[in-house]
Amino acid sequence: MKNYSVAVIGLGAMGMGAAKSCVNAGLDTYGVDLNPVALQTLKDHGAKAVGKSAVDFAQELDAVVLLVVNAAQVKAVLFGENGLAQHLKPGTAVMVSSTISAQDAKEISQKLTALGLLMLDAPVSGGAAKAAAGEMTVMASGSKQAFEKLQPVLTAVAGKVYNIGEEIGLGATVKIIHQLLAGVHIAAGAEAMALAAKAGIPLDLMYDVVTNAAGNSWMFENRMKHVVEGDYSPLSMVDIFVKDLGLVNDTAKSLHFPLHLASTAYSMFTEASNAGYGKEDDSAVIKIFSGIELPKKEGN
Amino acid sequence: MKNYSVAVIGLGAMGMGAAKSCVNAGLDTYGVDLNPVALQTLKDHGAKAVGKSAVDFAQELDAVVLLVVNAAQVKAVLFGENGLAQHLKPGTAVMVSSTISAQDAKEISQKLTALGLLMLDAPVSGGAAKAAAGEMTVMASGSKQAFEKLQPVLTAVAGKVYNIGEEIGLGATVKIIHQLLAGVHIAAGAEAMALAAKAGIPLDLMYDVVTNAAGNSWMFENRMKHVVEGDYSPLSMVDIFVKDLGLVNDTAKSLHFPLHLASTAYSMFTEASNAGYGKEDDSAVIKIFSGIELPKKEGN
Repeated sequence: MKNYSVAVIGLGAMGMGAAKSCVNAGLDTYGVDLNPVALQTLKDHGAKAVGKSAVDFAQELDAVVLLVVNAAQVKAVLFGENGLAQHLKPGTAVMVSSTISAQDAKEISQKLTALGLLMLDAPVSGGAAKAAAGEMTVMASGSKQAFEKLQPVLTAVAGKVYNIGEEIGLGATVKIIHQLLAGVHIAAGAEAMALAAKAGIPLDLMYDVVTNAAGNSWMFENRMKHVVEGDYSPLSMVDIFVKDLGLVNDTAKSLHFPLHLASTAYSMFTEASNAGYGKEDDSAVIKIFSGIELPKKEGN
Repeated sequence: MKNYSVAVIGLGAMGMGAAKSCVNAGLDTYGVDLNPVALQTLKDHGAKAVGKSAVDFAQELDAVVLLVVNAAQVKAVLFGENGLAQHLKPGTAVMVSSTISAQDAKEISQKLTALGLLMLDAPVSGGAAKAAAGEMTVMASGSKQAFEKLQPVLTAVAGKVYNIGEEIGLGATVKIIHQLLAGVHIAAGAEAMALAAKAGIPLDLMYDVVTNAAGNSWMFENRMKHVVEGDYSPLSMVDIFVKDLGLVNDTAKSLHFPLHLASTAYSMFTEASNAGYGKEDDSAVIKIFSGIELPKKEGN
């Protein structure tokens, strides 16, 4: 029997973890990215083949996992010049795991369906560590056939799979609401730590108190550590939350719904981006606050 | 050798847990509250004596723990008509664990010092469950003598004690910054769940996804469960966060510091209070959103 073959497209923090998890699970894994270092890393880990396009091995694939940055990239990969979709065998399953709008998910689904392909609207969460461990949280909607066809991939990459329903767009919406929380929590963490700095509270102590008390959040614990260490090397960038909180606010607009905190957090990340911190770690949103002294990275 | 004697004043969710933990640790424990049910509960648990005032057993005490609602109550208990402070033996330690401003903490400290009493500025966190288990987080500032004198109490009630420094007011400030996060996280949880309701996502599923992903917070996990269950019986009330986020904003004002999210969250809780939900569980802040249907309590 032929092995199960999957291509992971987009080898960033989450995509690399997912791809390695597919290798670890014994799937024939292909990796696609524009970054040659990422390609080599995955090749060394045991990928069957890697490259800048999946077109060359499209006919081998049972499944494709897309973990590129946004909807524009998903569309370019699938339907752009020499796009992948037209080269896939009918019945191939495409798992769209980038954070995109419900509207984009539906448009992509219509085009894939027209080509006889299956789609799972399947955003992910959990951070780079969970991705590396094959324990991402997947919030997915789609047909029974799409879930079934992608079962080997879901088993390889996910600690938890939520089946939100059949309708494409539900997965995207759940992820966007999740990002509302993630973004507000980072911005709130930054606001609290900035106030602590202003009040003369040592930030390492403030961090320690919060992470042992009811004010903690996953994002506070993960991201404010970067502030305490003064290290803004990007794991996930400020500009990602400009995009994601933009999607949150677009979703609210389309539902005619007010979002007091998420609209404020969006402004904070946008201000941080405009101030020149867009490519730094998202915890750099704290740099919008003036008149405080933040910890510096040791050795600098 | 005489046993160590402590009075816990204010037997709400946190105070009752602290008092019971003192009993459990073998301290001679006195309980004070205006609610006779709370007094009987603590008496049945093994308190040495209970009552509506601590004046009757003031001379027995090594320590007093104050877990009343606000600074006004702390001042009334200690310095009001027939106030407790004048009846305490010199050297008795007063642990002020209510959430109050740094300014109030300093004023109280000055008056206690004038009477020869020790004070620890020692707000707490962790929720009712941690309090009941004797595992509260205590964020304290004060003199070495105050810490030493209160050691038996701290051992009994706390899982973690942070010594923020000698200066009275530092403990209060750390707690207030902690409450910034706690309040914003509840309001953000409500905003996210309200958007999910508007988008037709089942709230139990949304809750399950978030609590297994990076968008989680301690408060989301604890409080949004009440929303999923449609149960707004107050554990901590909306009006408590009107007060606490008010303290957060007062602190920011005194430091000339902008708080984008905390000021917004303060408005959300204030709106909920004005709409008639002030005495409901703080998760009832979600009721400020119109045009959505929230889960109802089973059996209602």
